Amino acid sequence: MISIEQAFEFIDQTVHALPTSIRPVVECVGHVLVSAIQADMDSPPHDKSVMDGFAVRSEDVTAGTKRLQVIETIIAGDWPKLALETGQAARIMTGAPIPAGADAVVMVELTETEMIDNNEFVTLNVDSLAAEKNILRTGVNFSKGQTVFANGHIVRPTDVGLLAEVGAARVATATKPTVSILPTGNELVSCDQFPGQGQIRNSNGPLLNAMAKGLGLSVTDLGVGRDDPDQLRELIERGLNSDLLLLSGGVSAGTMDLVPGILNELGVTQVFHKVKIKPGKPIWFGVLERNEKPTYVFGLPGNPVSSMVGFQLFVRAAIRKMMGTGIDSNQSVVAELTIDHQTRGDRPTYWPGKFVNDDTPVRKVQPLVWRGSSDLFALGEAEGLIVFPANVHESAAGLPVRFHPF
Amino acid sequence: MISIEQAFEFIDQTVHALPTSIRPVVECVGHVLVSAIQADMDSPPHDKSVMDGFAVRSEDVTAGTKRLQVIETIIAGDWPKLALETGQAARIMTGAPIPAGADAVVMVELTETEMIDNNEFVTLNVDSLAAEKNILRTGVNFSKGQTVFANGHIVRPTDVGLLAEVGAARVATATKPTVSILPTGNELVSCDQFPGQGQIRNSNGPLLNAMAKGLGLSVTDLGVGRDDPDQLRELIERGLNSDLLLLSGGVSAGTMDLVPGILNELGVTQVFHKVKIKPGKPIWFGVLERNEKPTYVFGLPGNPVSSMVGFQLFVRAAIRKMMGTGIDSNQSVVAELTIDHQTRGDRPTYWPGKFVNDDTPVRKVQPLVWRGSSDLFALGEAEGLIVFPANVHESAAGLPVRFHPF
Repeated sequence: MISIEQAFEFIDQTVHALPTSIRPVVECVGHVLVSAIQADMDSPPHDKSVMDGFAVRSEDVTAGTKRLQVIETIIAGDWPKLALETGQAARIMTGAPIPAGADAVVMVELTETEMIDNNEFVTLNVDSLAAEKNILRTGVNFSKGQTVFANGHIVRPTDVGLLAEVGAARVATATKPTVSILPTGNELVSCDQFPGQGQIRNSNGPLLNAMAKGLGLSVTDLGVGRDDPDQLRELIERGLNSDLLLLSGGVSAGTMDLVPGILNELGVTQVFHKVKIKPGKPIWFGVLERNEKPTYVFGLPGNPVSSMVGFQLFVRAAIRKMMGTGIDSNQSVVAELTIDHQTRGDRPTYWPGKFVNDDTPVRKVQPLVWRGSSDLFALGEAEGLIVFPANVHESAAGLPVRFHPF
Repeated sequence: MISIEQAFEFIDQTVHALPTSIRPVVECVGHVLVSAIQADMDSPPHDKSVMDGFAVRSEDVTAGTKRLQVIETIIAGDWPKLALETGQAARIMTGAPIPAGADAVVMVELTETEMIDNNEFVTLNVDSLAAEKNILRTGVNFSKGQTVFANGHIVRPTDVGLLAEVGAARVATATKPTVSILPTGNELVSCDQFPGQGQIRNSNGPLLNAMAKGLGLSVTDLGVGRDDPDQLRELIERGLNSDLLLLSGGVSAGTMDLVPGILNELGVTQVFHKVKIKPGKPIWFGVLERNEKPTYVFGLPGNPVSSMVGFQLFVRAAIRKMMGTGIDSNQSVVAELTIDHQTRGDRPTYWPGKFVNDDTPVRKVQPLVWRGSSDLFALGEAEGLIVFPANVHESAAGLPVRFHPF
């Protein structure tokens, strides 16, 4: 039995990034940049007004001239035709380029205009005017050639504006893996059926499906594998067409646990089996090596919370590696326990918990009532997993603990 | 000009939830439950073993009998055929039902079996055995009729296992809105072009598109509206076929700001225009009332960060209301500033910031270098928006502030 850290190391060594693909900028959210992105021009690309108003020479105001002749109107998208001489102004809209000669913009709310002999004049209702007022100079936001996103950045919706501004209309990112999901067990019936004696509904299948879809992956639902070697072999063979195959059940020590044997027959090499973690100890990980297109296989425990914890920690690490970023095994925050808590055993325990927001800067988490690895009820309220180290059996309220938000 | 709180109130009063639709459980992530979900059976539905091992009568062990006759093998999905008598055991797999007579399970690792005269016997390598060991009793996780999710719950991937377990194979949720997006401005060119003199790339369109898709909405990209009343009217009319129309640009005070007039002509009633917020003051909100199918319209400012802030606060509130939940105007946490910070003006300021994780329970945020509403560069690093109240111009390191994570 290996440690959690060793499991992450094995995954990191075994799993490789998928090939790069090019996709439109709005489709690259959740994907990992495979190269840094540089600006191809300055931002803003020209000196521009940040207000609707009048571009003026501040020295005119300083010299006491507050009525100026309006020689031009410049809207965003225009290019100024005239340079401002002393005593002149240009009507200008937000975002429009500053005409030569102007060094400040007076906002429209502080101005009045009038027509005299077919000439338009503006009166500025200001006592003084600093040069540069309401002007954003070329390249102030960023300069041509500047790196705006590093290689390995995971694109978020709020990043897409900046990508578009620098012309990254099509973006090179690592491909996301395809996933097949195969829960196993004679006791499982579909969630649209009412279980008979000894049966339970298949909750692992929908759970793993939703978690994989939540990461933007394309999922193949293989149904339910029975404790029947032929049917199981056929389904596993189909699953091996995906980049990632997730099985659940069938990997513990019982006589009916057929999965490891069938995987071995099909050429899938075991990398590890059993990790010192609670819940989720009987997790199995292996790889089918094929030229350029390996399939990674996780055999997750049959109990749904064990399966979920295995996904959150280990499967997600493999997915991240395939997507071209680090496995990032440590995505957690530190928070204070709100109540005393007891754990048992000699394995690190990942316990369902939720944030308690009391409007202070101190992060707090509450361990939920939880009956163990078959108890999904606690997950309905949980916002993540609290880590209790091995052999720590009493944890007092106020203790800082690691919390892995979902 | 109204306050942020008033804007939320107007949105809450104006916007109504979309009709309910029924979808498969794995497709309901991100959707809002329109009724509470109750368990239709106990969990577990029968007394079950949490280990692979042997079901026994603990009194046998207490009485000193550690070699028992194995009378049956029970795998998950089976129903026990025999009741255990004194001196008997049943081989049992994880999840399988406990046979009558048994009150404990000894894990397989603590047992040895042998065949004697075609009868199988198991020897338990245990010194003592407590009743209930390794047994999970019927209904311990939850009971038939118990509410497992409240009305209004937003389904997360980790909820799908519990939904499946209670038989919620098809789930009633409010429909998500369809959205049309129309940035306006003569200065805008597509992000796959190199801007000419006076031009900039359309960053708002892709940004708003990605943010709406990030909430799982279906998006229609209407291209770019020019400062041309006919073209603009045609595009706006198309956009009014969606549940939500997002415009950007064209709503400030300049002469070329045509949008409010066209919206008025098309029957869209203004609810508010201008909110006391920085950035994003010139935001416009209105509604086209139609029997059973209104369209809500936001005119967002042309500067991309203003547009993003308007989306994060106000558009998202409207979307949440349409999706059947509260507008939840206060999704924020309190965190300590890592550095001194200056703000100006008399409006509350939403400033790009990022978490600083120092492995303590104290949440910390760092305000980023940011040049104002046209500066998207800061967003590439930001993880949310720090709120600086109106008329507070100096905020010292260590001060608790509100932070709205993206």
